Amino acid sequence: MRALRWGMVGGGLGAGIAPTHRRAASLDGRYALVAGAFSRDPERNRATGEELGIAADRVYPDFTAMAEAESRRADGIECVSVVTPNDTHAAASLAFIRKGVDVICDKPMATSLAEALAVEEAAAERGVLFALTHNYSAYPMVLEARYRVESGELGAIRVVTVEYAHGTRNRLIEAEGDAKMAWRVDAAIAGPSTVLGDIGTHAHHLLRAMTGLEIESLTADLSTMVPGRAADDNAFVNLRFQGGARGQLWASMVAAGNGHGLSIRVFGEKASLHWAQDNPDELFLRADGAPYRTLRRGEAYLCPTARHASRTKAGNPEGYFGAFANVYSDAAEVISARRDGRTADSLACAFATARDGVLGMAFIEAAVASHRNGGAWTGIGTRP
Amino acid sequence: MRALRWGMVGGGLGAGIAPTHRRAASLDGRYALVAGAFSRDPERNRATGEELGIAADRVYPDFTAMAEAESRRADGIECVSVVTPNDTHAAASLAFIRKGVDVICDKPMATSLAEALAVEEAAAERGVLFALTHNYSAYPMVLEARYRVESGELGAIRVVTVEYAHGTRNRLIEAEGDAKMAWRVDAAIAGPSTVLGDIGTHAHHLLRAMTGLEIESLTADLSTMVPGRAADDNAFVNLRFQGGARGQLWASMVAAGNGHGLSIRVFGEKASLHWAQDNPDELFLRADGAPYRTLRRGEAYLCPTARHASRTKAGNPEGYFGAFANVYSDAAEVISARRDGRTADSLACAFATARDGVLGMAFIEAAVASHRNGGAWTGIGTRP
Amino acid sequence: MRALRWGMVGGGLGAGIAPTHRRAASLDGRYALVAGAFSRDPERNRATGEELGIAADRVYPDFTAMAEAESRRADGIECVSVVTPNDTHAAASLAFIRKGVDVICDKPMATSLAEALAVEEAAAERGVLFALTHNYSAYPMVLEARYRVESGELGAIRVVTVEYAHGTRNRLIEAEGDAKMAWRVDAAIAGPSTVLGDIGTHAHHLLRAMTGLEIESLTADLSTMVPGRAADDNAFVNLRFQGGARGQLWASMVAAGNGHGLSIRVFGEKASLHWAQDNPDELFLRADGAPYRTLRRGEAYLCPTARHASRTKAGNPEGYFGAFANVYSDAAEVISARRDGRTADSLACAFATARDGVLGMAFIEAAVASHRNGGAWTGIGTRP
Amino acid sequence: MRALRWGMVGGGLGAGIAPTHRRAASLDGRYALVAGAFSRDPERNRATGEELGIAADRVYPDFTAMAEAESRRADGIECVSVVTPNDTHAAASLAFIRKGVDVICDKPMATSLAEALAVEEAAAERGVLFALTHNYSAYPMVLEARYRVESGELGAIRVVTVEYAHGTRNRLIEAEGDAKMAWRVDAAIAGPSTVLGDIGTHAHHLLRAMTGLEIESLTADLSTMVPGRAADDNAFVNLRFQGGARGQLWASMVAAGNGHGLSIRVFGEKASLHWAQDNPDELFLRADGAPYRTLRRGEAYLCPTARHASRTKAGNPEGYFGAFANVYSDAAEVISARRDGRTADSLACAFATARDGVLGMAFIEAAVASHRNGGAWTGIGTRP
Repeated sequence: MRALRWGMVGGGLGAGIAPTHRRAASLDGRYALVAGAFSRDPERNRATGEELGIAADRVYPDFTAMAEAESRRADGIECVSVVTPNDTHAAASLAFIRKGVDVICDKPMATSLAEALAVEEAAAERGVLFALTHNYSAYPMVLEARYRVESGELGAIRVVTVEYAHGTRNRLIEAEGDAKMAWRVDAAIAGPSTVLGDIGTHAHHLLRAMTGLEIESLTADLSTMVPGRAADDNAFVNLRFQGGARGQLWASMVAAGNGHGLSIRVFGEKASLHWAQDNPDELFLRADGAPYRTLRRGEAYLCPTARHASRTKAGNPEGYFGAFANVYSDAAEVISARRDGRTADSLACAFATARDGVLGMAFIEAAVASHRNGGAWTGIGTRP
Repeated sequence: MRALRWGMVGGGLGAGIAPTHRRAASLDGRYALVAGAFSRDPERNRATGEELGIAADRVYPDFTAMAEAESRRADGIECVSVVTPNDTHAAASLAFIRKGVDVICDKPMATSLAEALAVEEAAAERGVLFALTHNYSAYPMVLEARYRVESGELGAIRVVTVEYAHGTRNRLIEAEGDAKMAWRVDAAIAGPSTVLGDIGTHAHHLLRAMTGLEIESLTADLSTMVPGRAADDNAFVNLRFQGGARGQLWASMVAAGNGHGLSIRVFGEKASLHWAQDNPDELFLRADGAPYRTLRRGEAYLCPTARHASRTKAGNPEGYFGAFANVYSDAAEVISARRDGRTADSLACAFATARDGVLGMAFIEAAVASHRNGGAWTGIGTRP
Repeated sequence: MRALRWGMVGGGLGAGIAPTHRRAASLDGRYALVAGAFSRDPERNRATGEELGIAADRVYPDFTAMAEAESRRADGIECVSVVTPNDTHAAASLAFIRKGVDVICDKPMATSLAEALAVEEAAAERGVLFALTHNYSAYPMVLEARYRVESGELGAIRVVTVEYAHGTRNRLIEAEGDAKMAWRVDAAIAGPSTVLGDIGTHAHHLLRAMTGLEIESLTADLSTMVPGRAADDNAFVNLRFQGGARGQLWASMVAAGNGHGLSIRVFGEKASLHWAQDNPDELFLRADGAPYRTLRRGEAYLCPTARHASRTKAGNPEGYFGAFANVYSDAAEVISARRDGRTADSLACAFATARDGVLGMAFIEAAVASHRNGGAWTGIGTRP
Repeated sequence: MRALRWGMVGGGLGAGIAPTHRRAASLDGRYALVAGAFSRDPERNRATGEELGIAADRVYPDFTAMAEAESRRADGIECVSVVTPNDTHAAASLAFIRKGVDVICDKPMATSLAEALAVEEAAAERGVLFALTHNYSAYPMVLEARYRVESGELGAIRVVTVEYAHGTRNRLIEAEGDAKMAWRVDAAIAGPSTVLGDIGTHAHHLLRAMTGLEIESLTADLSTMVPGRAADDNAFVNLRFQGGARGQLWASMVAAGNGHGLSIRVFGEKASLHWAQDNPDELFLRADGAPYRTLRRGEAYLCPTARHASRTKAGNPEGYFGAFANVYSDAAEVISARRDGRTADSLACAFATARDGVLGMAFIEAAVASHRNGGAWTGIGTRP
């Protein structure tokens, strides 16, 4: 099992999510970091490269130079991770896609639906993988849930509730010098809805990944709860799905004391599934008239996809790094297989695609439109 | 501590909720059942009276005859419980109120706001108590939550989520001969929304009782998930409160596998409170930056109202009968005190009032109006 | 369904457990309290009778006078509850048994095995019921557990762990004026082991009730953790059962912060059962290689005995009063049936018998003997 | 931060725990695997080296050859992990210690106390680190618990209960071809007690790591529950600690349905701590008379050691790999610091030492002696 030659855009020392990307990539040994454009600050860029053991000549001032130079090397990177603020996701991805480099990009895919569509189109044309790190949807028990839904165990789905509500921004922390928050309240960088772009898209993707349902229309109430904040920080979205099911999505940054706060419940005709990220190794399956069942990661009775996504025996909590690593390792399998001319393991599917990212942006734009239109029911479209 | 002379309207053998009313009334020994109009079916009426040890001459064919006859007896009933289907709540209550008998009524208060207002007015004029059995709001830890909210421990409230979602009607049980469901899907008996009248009002009252917030406007999406059902069975309601807080209320009878399904979360500037009826003796208080706290029924650190509402030491789960008994015992205290010419214990407050019932009906009517109007934001008013 | 004429020995105002006995007896309406010897303090005795609405001439100075007088009345009591400190359990029970009055007695049965055997023998001779209020074993889900064990769902039982460990006596509260504790540290009143007599017997009976196993031999380590205490307050007991299973029982009054603290786990060849009193409506059934199952009170899939012991639908927590009421109502059924010359409902079995009480005393005496003998394995016998 | 040159003894493809060691070592990037003696089977040894990208000339037939060859290389390994069956732990460790190579060894340290003492002495003489992978004691919340105990928040400790009881060997799996179990039931390989050596030592070390208590004497009941098994599979051990506290330790492989099954409770004069490996990011702190507290990994209020041992924000479950990585990364810090002539970070302490391993072996030998002596109280000594 060879390691892919891998680069990173963003992720300078002190950045929030980049160490998680690096840990996730390392867990199964399928990536070797060999190049980067880690920071627009030259000194921070240099120091990050040194800390990570990257050759100095492969630490680049920006993603354009990096895409250019790496594509000319015989041993140039095969894939790249884009872990910058939202407004460069599309541009950086396009730069590498156009050079034939596979892209793993942090969510949301872009700051507008139009940008997202452009990236999707470019990746399709060039034949490279564009994967989004919707890591929460890559937990084994989420994959098991999807399997149970598809197998018909719940009957037709009637109601879905999903929420991603934490409280870590329930003060005006952007005024207290929190750099990670500062850009998130700038619509030019974060996109039209901070709360939906930052965490709502995770909830939106989890819902789609677990149920296979697609939203037909929605009504949204976006609000700003923290006085002085320039962006929204709470969103209630009611959903009508194709086929008649109903649902609600709550995204909030002001749910004081709520921990991480991502959970989902899927109610079908016969039974329901309940899952929460703070206890990710368990999936609760509840059918009326029968004892409740708790399915556990690592057990032999799980579906092949869930077992593929698991590394240790049941009872040892695999956690956040395991799920994030599933995104990376499954992307590595697809990338390696194509590059090596073999068929990829069909179980390697724990990552979101360009289409998922496009639908995420369409969701955000529809919610913003509904809110501005007094909460009117608004259809979802993927063409502007 | 004397027992009140007490009557019951409805609650013939086999009825759903009446045995719970009788158990709740017995737990603290403050009621003696001496009269009743238990059923419109004469034989069932008679048999119920006999089973309950009621003198045959105080088992009446209907509530009108009962109100008339009892009000003429020197030892006539002092208070009555109305546990009939919704459409007679108002009429039966009025019959007794006009005779000066205190009334304890099952929820919802009526089938329309107009009816509810008439009952409220009559009780005020006659100076008797009208209490609604919103038993779920009478748990000690709900009272403690109210105290914590009022004391400012959460800061200003920003978001509230409440739900009462069970799955016991996720099949067309009204077509399978379930009599308790049959009348609930008949709008003439149950009122304009089955799901809101039957369980939504419990959630609505719990929210108000715990937070003190009043709804300014709402948007509702009511739906019927079980094919063939003549009534709604799922409701998503988004809420805007006076003062700017936001919330959502979910009421459902088709949440397969969801157990009883009543829970609430209150998020303030600094902390949140979480409570669920399936674990009623615990209240979760979570402040950002501090260890989570679990408050437990029966502990000395609770507020006087919560301690008043509790009978056993912490760790012995007091449960559903304890909470229901709180409604009855606190109502008995208020009724007895007025009748005996003394001041009632100020801690005896674990019951809903006529005003609460009126607001419950206003909530239902606003939700139905919003839904019919394409989900438009609709204000709450208590005058038709 | 007639109410039994019922008396009470002990339970003066302010007593700990007596109000629970009275609430438990009232919940299903099968007892009418008509006589009592509530306190050795004449004024307290009188006031208690008045508060409870007992005719003054049926409030007696002591149980001897009460047994004598009531047995001469045509409308004398049919049954009596003994809720005094441990040292009068046997004597009071014998006084009534000898008059043909059925007895419901708080645990432990006596202060010695010899006393317990005398009571057992007397009840058998006179043909009356002697029931012990091991209320924790009367929860519906404990009855369900017993059914599952008997049905072979676990396979042969291999290991059982049971504990009753709370922390409410982790200070020297007997020196702070806590009267309820004062007599418990006096071996002349409480018996040879305070911790085993007060709570260890509950754990011991729960173990036997749930598993059907009988102890063959044990080794015990009793200790006094609170400096200055005259009695033991912590006990670790290792168990060898007839048939080869092993187990351990932990009883403690110094488990700071532990809540009520009664729980049990039963491990068989194929699966295990887990139950705890702080969440009594759920029973956890875990088989290797299968999803965990949670069985819930009130569901139709439970065994007839568990359904018989339940009053409300699943999801409404029935709690402590429900279980305690099961002891009373099942005892009432057996007593009434015999007195009325009919066959008792075979499901009415949620109470402990004289034999259970005898085995409880044998357990205590064996544990004390083992401890005094350096922890030697000591056999259980029921003949002194 | 440089990576240590690292070797591995054992851990051929298909081995149980070795991939976890490799993932743990990779998570923080402080180890580079460059040599190994992975298997006594030459082909498996070769294939493992190839899979892991090890140069062919550094894949050795046995640990003796490896220690010899690596110690002669300028770029020879600085540290080695020993992940073989128990009977070679001591010999392999000694081979590398004598060459000045730091050793990270799987538990138990040896198959006898005498062996363990020899290793301890050799490491002390040579001045190298000997670390044991008691990974469960390396969770951040275990470190926090130790801090809370030391700070006096619980008062003097009175009672400790710890258990490691799973059910994965509740059938005769060694007869079904489970190679990982086969050697564990061979006393010549596994040592004198299978259940204590395999999992009991984890519980023993967790107890010591969390409380700082040392055992004075113990009484043990070892048993074999699965018919046909050549080794013990269940152990109840009662403990008396220096200073007077009491405790019990339960180790079992036949606790059907019990999941992973490692948990601990520490009861002090004023409060208790509760922790379980299946929910490792939470630590429960319960003081009498105060709300229960839940401390959570990743929060700023934790002690410096707990924060040092944590990589992600609260709410993202860090899990098993995080804890195992703490052992590796802290060992790397100590090894690197000594080799680089600097002072190690004082927070790098999440690994067990040779002394801990010696005490683990002394615990096993005392338990076996007590059991053979009819459960007599037996003192713990570290000199044979």
